[in-house]
Amino acid sequence: MTSTQHPIYLDHNATTPVLPEVVDAMLPWLREHFGNPSSNHVYGHQARQAVANARAQVAALIGCLPAEIYFTSGGTESNNLAIQGVTAARPGRRHIVTSVIEHPATEMPCRFLQEHGFRISRAGVDETGMVRLDAIESSMTQTTALVTIMHANSETGTLQPIQEIAAMAHAHGAVMHTDAAQTTGKIHYSVDELGVDLVSIVGHKMYAPKGIGALYVRNGTAIEPQSLGGGHEQGLRSGTENVPYIVALGQACDIARKDGARANQRITRLRDELYNGLNAVIPGLKLNGHPDLRLPNTLNVRFPGISGTTLLAHTAEIAASTGSACHAEDESASAVIKAMGLTEAQALESVRLTLGRETTAEDIAIAVKALRRAYEAVS
Amino acid sequence: MTSTQHPIYLDHNATTPVLPEVVDAMLPWLREHFGNPSSNHVYGHQARQAVANARAQVAALIGCLPAEIYFTSGGTESNNLAIQGVTAARPGRRHIVTSVIEHPATEMPCRFLQEHGFRISRAGVDETGMVRLDAIESSMTQTTALVTIMHANSETGTLQPIQEIAAMAHAHGAVMHTDAAQTTGKIHYSVDELGVDLVSIVGHKMYAPKGIGALYVRNGTAIEPQSLGGGHEQGLRSGTENVPYIVALGQACDIARKDGARANQRITRLRDELYNGLNAVIPGLKLNGHPDLRLPNTLNVRFPGISGTTLLAHTAEIAASTGSACHAEDESASAVIKAMGLTEAQALESVRLTLGRETTAEDIAIAVKALRRAYEAVS
Repeated sequence: MTSTQHPIYLDHNATTPVLPEVVDAMLPWLREHFGNPSSNHVYGHQARQAVANARAQVAALIGCLPAEIYFTSGGTESNNLAIQGVTAARPGRRHIVTSVIEHPATEMPCRFLQEHGFRISRAGVDETGMVRLDAIESSMTQTTALVTIMHANSETGTLQPIQEIAAMAHAHGAVMHTDAAQTTGKIHYSVDELGVDLVSIVGHKMYAPKGIGALYVRNGTAIEPQSLGGGHEQGLRSGTENVPYIVALGQACDIARKDGARANQRITRLRDELYNGLNAVIPGLKLNGHPDLRLPNTLNVRFPGISGTTLLAHTAEIAASTGSACHAEDESASAVIKAMGLTEAQALESVRLTLGRETTAEDIAIAVKALRRAYEAVS
Repeated sequence: MTSTQHPIYLDHNATTPVLPEVVDAMLPWLREHFGNPSSNHVYGHQARQAVANARAQVAALIGCLPAEIYFTSGGTESNNLAIQGVTAARPGRRHIVTSVIEHPATEMPCRFLQEHGFRISRAGVDETGMVRLDAIESSMTQTTALVTIMHANSETGTLQPIQEIAAMAHAHGAVMHTDAAQTTGKIHYSVDELGVDLVSIVGHKMYAPKGIGALYVRNGTAIEPQSLGGGHEQGLRSGTENVPYIVALGQACDIARKDGARANQRITRLRDELYNGLNAVIPGLKLNGHPDLRLPNTLNVRFPGISGTTLLAHTAEIAASTGSACHAEDESASAVIKAMGLTEAQALESVRLTLGRETTAEDIAIAVKALRRAYEAVS
């Protein structure tokens, strides 16, 4: 797995492989059972049952009712539906609280609403990448429709204090949304513990395919649909259900619920081995993000004096990135890293190494050697 | 294939099986090549290339440029994007021309815009289910933003005079959209012959999976995105690309381009055998829809004096429907059939039998016998 064709994959926050068990679960729904869940015959009934089973599996992972889960085509749609849907349902409130480190699928709908008269408050982060609670608190008003803060940042892995933010939101009558693209399957959470009203879930960050996601909507939360049609998903998201991928997401959630804690402990150990290994050979290596309150698989580090892009270009043995995949073509420094108070030059030194279920101890040993060799070649 | 578990499937306008060749084409993109097309390493490059290949395959089927194809999550999203996207880009024009027989994924966004101040003109149909050109023509004004008329109706199969309607639209400066969910892969068309500006394509009506579609947008057509984020699909449709299903849709389009004419000739023969067989044994059987200008796979017939729902409930050997799957739970008479001038009672007598690539002559013989037996049992 270390040829140029198959370098060691350390970019799991961009996307994950699909687990073989997930492919196996969905295949019968591609090969044999192809009915439309809306059809009133046995083909339709089978498909409808499969969707219901998957909905229960997703709900079980995050501790909600199946009827509070709405399947979507992925994280971008879930975030857009949450932000545009909640604000459309609350015309008297034209203010949104968010942060400076959100994914474009959150920032861009907020910017769209800003162009249409909404006021947007964007809280900054501290030096660990954690959203400043005082900034959230002070920006909240009685016209705040929605607070939307990611559960963990994809670049630094820093976990956000969602529970505290949700309490602040509710104290002001605002609805609380969190984009849990990076946390679902990586850390345990329940919607009630977090106190959130909406949660975005993304299949391809948790070993299900790209093109499926879900939005949790707490019972009683006012929300308007974006895509209108046949009234699927209780009228909130029309469109014939993607049965195979819904089954896949259900299976991925079931695996995460049953095996997530064990897998993530193992991944954390490997992640820390990677950090310790690099730390021993790279003088002045610096960790970006929170030392502890961080995704188990995420290591974002600075190689002093070296461009991260150049470093990775000299490391054919691994596939990693300098930041979010949604900006991979963009050579400019990460806005997330700069928001933590780092300079442009420091931000450009950053590399994100994100591990996954198939990462092995051998992979980590090879990665350390390869990064050391590249570092020495370019420094 | 005639057990109650696997009755003969005659509901292809609701959804089709996925062709084995299509599953085979997509499987490597689920099992091995899982990269995010936005990632700047070999995993990403492979995925990006697969998406580019599929885009060219879709474009080749309908005679457009690859860059004019935008992948979506399906027909509902394509129609919503076309209707909401074009009207958002043309604020000076607040009128839409459509028809009374459109799919809910067209009718519902039009109704939404109507509630927000748009004027909507809905053309009626003649006794064959064809949209009245005079009604289209007379409703057109200089404020018409968009004309949206389906290419073929899913219930009757009647093909619509899109070429003539597009010419009328353009004479008034309106943009022309057609929902080609039912025609793509079933009849040959090219976007230039039709003269259309936007076309909705739906994977699961043409042997690709549910949850993938495309929108053709003619170069230079002003359109605003609905789902905002990382700027995928040239900024019109953000969200990590569903690589496996995009590959599947490309493969399905390639098969349709190379083998569609042959397959559809065979299906037409079987469809006509079914009609002739039923006509010989059911006194007073009536065809709904146009006798010739009709989808090759679609037979919509009335069994005089018998409820279609009751008839199908007594025909365990086949899986079919009385109308659109998006209304399957709705026991009321088809609005499409009534729009053709039929009474409520006549509409309730209608049954839609829609054939597909895997339908055999034996299936047709069994279906005729089964429907005759059921007819005699309930009449």
